[in-house]
Amino acid sequence: MPRLAFWYEFASTYSYLSALRIETLAAEAGVAIDWRPFLLGPIFKAQGWSTSPFNLYPAKGRHMIRDIERIAAARGLAFRLPEPFPQNGLLPARLATLGVEEGWVAPFTRAVYTAEFAEGRDIADVATLAEILERIGVAAAPALAAAASDDTRARLRRTTAEAERLGLFGAPSFVCSDGELFWGDDRLRQALDWACTRRSSSKCPTT
Amino acid sequence: MPRLAFWYEFASTYSYLSALRIETLAAEAGVAIDWRPFLLGPIFKAQGWSTSPFNLYPAKGRHMIRDIERIAAARGLAFRLPEPFPQNGLLPARLATLGVEEGWVAPFTRAVYTAEFAEGRDIADVATLAEILERIGVAAAPALAAAASDDTRARLRRTTAEAERLGLFGAPSFVCSDGELFWGDDRLRQALDWACTRRSSSKCPTT
Repeated sequence: MPRLAFWYEFASTYSYLSALRIETLAAEAGVAIDWRPFLLGPIFKAQGWSTSPFNLYPAKGRHMIRDIERIAAARGLAFRLPEPFPQNGLLPARLATLGVEEGWVAPFTRAVYTAEFAEGRDIADVATLAEILERIGVAAAPALAAAASDDTRARLRRTTAEAERLGLFGAPSFVCSDGELFWGDDRLRQALDWACTRRSSSKCPTT
Repeated sequence: MPRLAFWYEFASTYSYLSALRIETLAAEAGVAIDWRPFLLGPIFKAQGWSTSPFNLYPAKGRHMIRDIERIAAARGLAFRLPEPFPQNGLLPARLATLGVEEGWVAPFTRAVYTAEFAEGRDIADVATLAEILERIGVAAAPALAAAASDDTRARLRRTTAEAERLGLFGAPSFVCSDGELFWGDDRLRQALDWACTRRSSSKCPTT
């Protein structure tokens, strides 16, 4: 089965849109998804940004909100911007890194994004994250302890360094096994097509 | 007939993609297009950028080129980045401003973008622009003289000031008569749908 890496940052609004639909689209396309939670902060800092570009460039920020409202409405999703924006995605990213190892990254990621962008909740809050973990069937206390371990922290740092090496500059990004990079929720279908049709052995549905 | 304003800057790669397809899509949607050539330079300067963001952020620039190559290939369009990039779009923007008044803006705009991004030619070059004008049936010498007039310059400055007032921050942008703003070639179909369905009197094709 062809694979596609889904790179996302929990503070990212457009990553919310992708996280909520990627499994459905990937199943239709016959592509397996590798979930890659990473931190955009260090990458933004390296290009001189101290916060989200949507805050640095207010006209762009206003359009982003309206754009996501329109897309979310068309897809039947709720949307509200959390306060403050951007949220601090460090703790959920550490938990998701653990979730990749332990097999619960997908439901965890969807639940965090829904809490953040459908309900406007604070995703740096330990109680919120504990509640999400329990809801998806993961014991919260050991998961939170493991997420704070040196091992998980180092793994997240390695993932973020790999993102830089791959030339990622925003989220969501999609990377095919041949290195082809797609940026943005609006490129998800293209990325799935690419992942699918470049693997001659795969049986891609006609799109 | 519902109307959609198409705001574009001649240096903009994604505006090329829109300019080459907007009339076909607008005709299908039953929407009339108002061509709005403007200058992004003053807007970029106001947010602290001295050149294209694709030069300021090289990883983003590399992705943009690849992204446009993929889209252009899918649409049967040629693409090459002109040297230098971005091109100076001032003179073609003045000519297009005149073309709005005189009714030849659409074929002129398409021809300039094709020279720039399909053939890699210099669109600040007077000889190139004169050749394009003659090819679309416009006498070059009087058009170039009128484009340099105080009246045309002032009109382009007013259009660019209006772009800022509308909250435009990039190109292409699409603005509906109710003020709804869409940014990017990938939002063109949405913008046409919006222009169409918000005018209750219009007969929109089902999309």
